[in-house]
Amino acid sequence: MQDVILIDHKELEGFAFKIMQAAGCDEKRAKIVAKVLVESDLRGIASHGVARLGRYVNHIRQGLIDPKGEPVIVQDSPLAASMDGKAGVGQYVAELAMTEAIAKAEKNGIGFVSVRNSNHFGIAGYFAEQCVNQNMLGIALTNTGPYVVPTNGKSPVMGTNPLAISFPVVEGSPISIDMATSVVPLGKLETYARRQMDIPQGWAVDQTGHSVTDPSGVISDLKENSLGGILALGGEGEEFGGHKGFGLALMIELFTAGLAQGAPSSETYREVGDVCHFFGAIKLDLFGDPEAITRHFTYIVNGIRQSEKADRADRIYIHGEKEYEARGESLRTGIRLGKAIYAGLQSLAQEFDIELLGGN
Amino acid sequence: MQDVILIDHKELEGFAFKIMQAAGCDEKRAKIVAKVLVESDLRGIASHGVARLGRYVNHIRQGLIDPKGEPVIVQDSPLAASMDGKAGVGQYVAELAMTEAIAKAEKNGIGFVSVRNSNHFGIAGYFAEQCVNQNMLGIALTNTGPYVVPTNGKSPVMGTNPLAISFPVVEGSPISIDMATSVVPLGKLETYARRQMDIPQGWAVDQTGHSVTDPSGVISDLKENSLGGILALGGEGEEFGGHKGFGLALMIELFTAGLAQGAPSSETYREVGDVCHFFGAIKLDLFGDPEAITRHFTYIVNGIRQSEKADRADRIYIHGEKEYEARGESLRTGIRLGKAIYAGLQSLAQEFDIELLGGN
Repeated sequence: MQDVILIDHKELEGFAFKIMQAAGCDEKRAKIVAKVLVESDLRGIASHGVARLGRYVNHIRQGLIDPKGEPVIVQDSPLAASMDGKAGVGQYVAELAMTEAIAKAEKNGIGFVSVRNSNHFGIAGYFAEQCVNQNMLGIALTNTGPYVVPTNGKSPVMGTNPLAISFPVVEGSPISIDMATSVVPLGKLETYARRQMDIPQGWAVDQTGHSVTDPSGVISDLKENSLGGILALGGEGEEFGGHKGFGLALMIELFTAGLAQGAPSSETYREVGDVCHFFGAIKLDLFGDPEAITRHFTYIVNGIRQSEKADRADRIYIHGEKEYEARGESLRTGIRLGKAIYAGLQSLAQEFDIELLGGN
Repeated sequence: MQDVILIDHKELEGFAFKIMQAAGCDEKRAKIVAKVLVESDLRGIASHGVARLGRYVNHIRQGLIDPKGEPVIVQDSPLAASMDGKAGVGQYVAELAMTEAIAKAEKNGIGFVSVRNSNHFGIAGYFAEQCVNQNMLGIALTNTGPYVVPTNGKSPVMGTNPLAISFPVVEGSPISIDMATSVVPLGKLETYARRQMDIPQGWAVDQTGHSVTDPSGVISDLKENSLGGILALGGEGEEFGGHKGFGLALMIELFTAGLAQGAPSSETYREVGDVCHFFGAIKLDLFGDPEAITRHFTYIVNGIRQSEKADRADRIYIHGEKEYEARGESLRTGIRLGKAIYAGLQSLAQEFDIELLGGN
């Protein structure tokens, strides 16, 4: 078996749909999960793609996700809503919340929706990008499981807390900034551990609260002792701005769990997932002619993109470009699935008695 | 002369007021500049305090700041406004814009104001914090002069683009995240250069676009060749998330220059300062009972503050705490001014024939 299997994105989406249905989701829930996961694989972000299916199935079995959970809006006004996700499927909750934010913005200029009691929703950028074809900018934030230590701390009391924000441009892919506020995701430590490679100083700390190079120690401290974890963007201490990354993670924590009065990252994944989100849609015409603003966004990023390259660097990428180019390639050639992920999917298929994936 | 001179904050504020008046500002403009600068010194942030007075005076002489510039609102609606700062004094423009954002939020729930054609406004946190006693969260963003290189670039096409966001809490100082999106400010390189110290790898690049340890080379490349500059949070390349810091700087560029259709950082300080800002005020009651949300913010930061400390670390600081404690100390003992700053102020005083500062 080769290292990478190529699979048509429609086949993969159909497969993910069937798995989620078999796990207890109705059609609309299974459909949005499959769509968001495969969108991530199309963009080359395997960590947030169909590789998550097994975990979602387990979360349903453990009761962290209620596959029938139906979100309810607990407070509503023309500009904002607060939603209780009812422990539902993250992508489904997020789609409802972002749709609500966009509807409010369409009508009143701005729409903000805070969400508590949800679950992992996949790539944040998917939701933020829903706004860009409507002359809006889009925002999607979420807290996560507890993996990140604050500056001077050694307990993982914060999430990797990603921030996604998307801006429309005149042509080509939207500007789509979609980033965890940690230096690296947990998955990256796991990859290094599996390959028995050291991690660089400044990625993660062990139970002493200080940066170490052995990823296995970090992972076992985190899982067994709930100590140590990943560092926020900027690394250990303040020398490279670790307190700034900590500030960003805190900002996301307050926009999500804070505004929604939900569980902070440190209290997620107990009885239920209890993940909190925040979605925003802001119409450009609040500030001027939306076409002129979109042209100005484009002008600004073109100025950066076309600025002088560092010696030995080929290209300055604007956020979202790499992912959209990978997407074009995946649509043409099929999605490249690693063999471990492929094998995991096949065993899920057998378990649920679903037709095996093809691919070559 | 000792290294540090202690000066009563009221005396310092009166002094700054007189300098700005002598430089051409009317009373209200001189007053807000003096207030914001001294607020920074009170908090121990000397780089954004009265040390800036000399530069402001020069900017007025060079025509970058129009000391009589009166901002006008060029587009207005219940939730948002766009303002042309008319090359006015940054603190004055910013105060008008933030006041407008708060008034809109008070009435309608949310207020956003984008500003173009302004100038350096001092510490962003000062403006964001105006919201926290009104059951609102506050946002203040600005672009700056061009000092920051994008990932894979070697031209300083972005600003240090700070982000300030403030959240109310039940007691004590507000949560006040106020951070440049660069690893360090330019002033830090200047300090290292003056002391003939190396800077760590990962702070700044020279004209090759790669990280170097000699701060003098970086500063001369930047000033003489407009090449090289400071790295965004996360440092060089992608290993420590430099592309994330670049994304944050870009986000600020688009929220400020983009929405206001003003000059990106790369085009500031030509004929006029041309700096762009963004201010936001968001009422908490959009999401639920504001007291309950404020209690929940407090609960979240208390959980982080009280979490386990790293070995050999004394304390986990929540953003704003250090600055508010320094403020209390400065109010008691006087503001600690470095002797170089003190000497600069005295020569300004002589130039404008203003009573010399006292202090001891």
